[in-house]
Amino acid sequence: MAGKEDQITRWFAEQRKLDSQRVMVGIGDDMAQLRILSADSVLITTDMLLDGVHFDLAYCSLDQVGYKSMAASLSDCAAMATVPIGAVCAVGLPVSFGIDQLKQMHRGLLQAADAFDCPLVGGDITKWHSATDRLVVCVSMLSIPSGYHPPVRRSGAKVGDIICVTGTLGGSLADKHLTFTPRVREALAITKIAQVNAMMDISDGLSTDLNRICQQSGVGAVVEVAALPLSETARQSSDPVAAALHDGEDFELLFTVAPQEFKKLAALQDVSITAIGTITADKQMSLRFPDGRQVPLVPQGYDHL
Amino acid sequence: MAGKEDQITRWFAEQRKLDSQRVMVGIGDDMAQLRILSADSVLITTDMLLDGVHFDLAYCSLDQVGYKSMAASLSDCAAMATVPIGAVCAVGLPVSFGIDQLKQMHRGLLQAADAFDCPLVGGDITKWHSATDRLVVCVSMLSIPSGYHPPVRRSGAKVGDIICVTGTLGGSLADKHLTFTPRVREALAITKIAQVNAMMDISDGLSTDLNRICQQSGVGAVVEVAALPLSETARQSSDPVAAALHDGEDFELLFTVAPQEFKKLAALQDVSITAIGTITADKQMSLRFPDGRQVPLVPQGYDHL
Repeated sequence: MAGKEDQITRWFAEQRKLDSQRVMVGIGDDMAQLRILSADSVLITTDMLLDGVHFDLAYCSLDQVGYKSMAASLSDCAAMATVPIGAVCAVGLPVSFGIDQLKQMHRGLLQAADAFDCPLVGGDITKWHSATDRLVVCVSMLSIPSGYHPPVRRSGAKVGDIICVTGTLGGSLADKHLTFTPRVREALAITKIAQVNAMMDISDGLSTDLNRICQQSGVGAVVEVAALPLSETARQSSDPVAAALHDGEDFELLFTVAPQEFKKLAALQDVSITAIGTITADKQMSLRFPDGRQVPLVPQGYDHL
Repeated sequence: MAGKEDQITRWFAEQRKLDSQRVMVGIGDDMAQLRILSADSVLITTDMLLDGVHFDLAYCSLDQVGYKSMAASLSDCAAMATVPIGAVCAVGLPVSFGIDQLKQMHRGLLQAADAFDCPLVGGDITKWHSATDRLVVCVSMLSIPSGYHPPVRRSGAKVGDIICVTGTLGGSLADKHLTFTPRVREALAITKIAQVNAMMDISDGLSTDLNRICQQSGVGAVVEVAALPLSETARQSSDPVAAALHDGEDFELLFTVAPQEFKKLAALQDVSITAIGTITADKQMSLRFPDGRQVPLVPQGYDHL
């Protein structure tokens, strides 16, 4: 697997060399300026992470908080198969924080940013006044279209499409949600060789996020239980299938492609892709067991409110 | 004054009609896409506002919180004389918040966004889990160069430049910090007719922000006490000059222009501009009183940490 990873890493590095020639950065003023030489559009995402909700400082390091904050936004770029070009980070620091804490978090931010050559171009540092208030981190990221595939929307799934996911699903909260690799390279590699009709990253759980694709595309879906790629953590849980279906923060790609496009993905041996079901016309989601029994699939992932 | 305001408002509306043809928005996916037809660069800013620090929900409405959050980012665009094209807003809601509170804040966000035709194109809604945690709002905004003047940096001040401010200074925390008009139109009007060497918005107080321009430009400054445009609130305070020099959140423009460029600004009768001093070579800031006495001007504005 290592050799194959290297192949995609090398390809990504070459891509980034081209991209960096397209983007030039000016920083240190009221706004950071990104010069875009050949893109005709930019994309923006913002994600706010709260202590006690998206991470818990009692159980993780500030490096991990920084890493996760940046990686979550990178995953949004992956979700649309666009190329990240720069990010800004705003933080609300607890009263007790000093420069050491800030530096530690910054190190984590840069670890993710550097891994994808997405410079941290600016930010805003504020501090709470009351001792009970907790750490907030908000990363906003810009990306540009890859040039070879338009940004992939959630609304493009078509009846007959094969539903695919990268990697394995379930049990992310045990550890992966702090250490995951955003699927930026994989998304760019997939859209390089195949037409992808709909895509997003799985942040709130497969059942909830697949429902978003179905709703926005006006379609339904059948998911094959036996096909679900269960993570090792999910396998060890009391209900592995439920973990794969509903656990949040997998940060894997969920996408749909026509059958003839799916065949092309076989060439992509260095990306783990699993077909888990089919897009249907009936505007409902269901789960099919190996014995043919079919039950409704109800969105039971993470609800932000 | 009303007639003159109308003139600049009409001009701004015409500008925006042109700009909107340059920007097209796609939203509802993992990222919002802004199509930029003729800009070769984009600028990004992010600002985090905390309950109890930048606003206090015990003393202000959620409309005002929303308005201020968006207006602060618009003021960053004004600071560089760029054209705002879109914003995203991430919020961390207190446990007690429901849809009504969210709608009220959204109304305030849109009030500022609509006033400057800067669409709210996306965001992230999260909620704290603990009852003690307080409201956080983070707006990130994109802008593009005006096309007739490059984005104005802080680092361009030149010896001999005249230091100018818009509006009046001091006492903003009494009320103005929640209701101010970001100087987007004024910045675009000023840079339309004159070459501006350095500019920023006064968010942390004149003494602190002028120091930033001096540091980044490698110059000094003499500020004339008698020239400071004191706000009505500052006049009523115990030390009006200190209020004008050090109070934060005026959100007025602070800029420097060569004397021959300053003369051109006289044509701009509908923008309140005051010359308050001169850029010097000695890399120090000082304050000159009407009797000729000169004392060091020490940055005493708001310190975020």
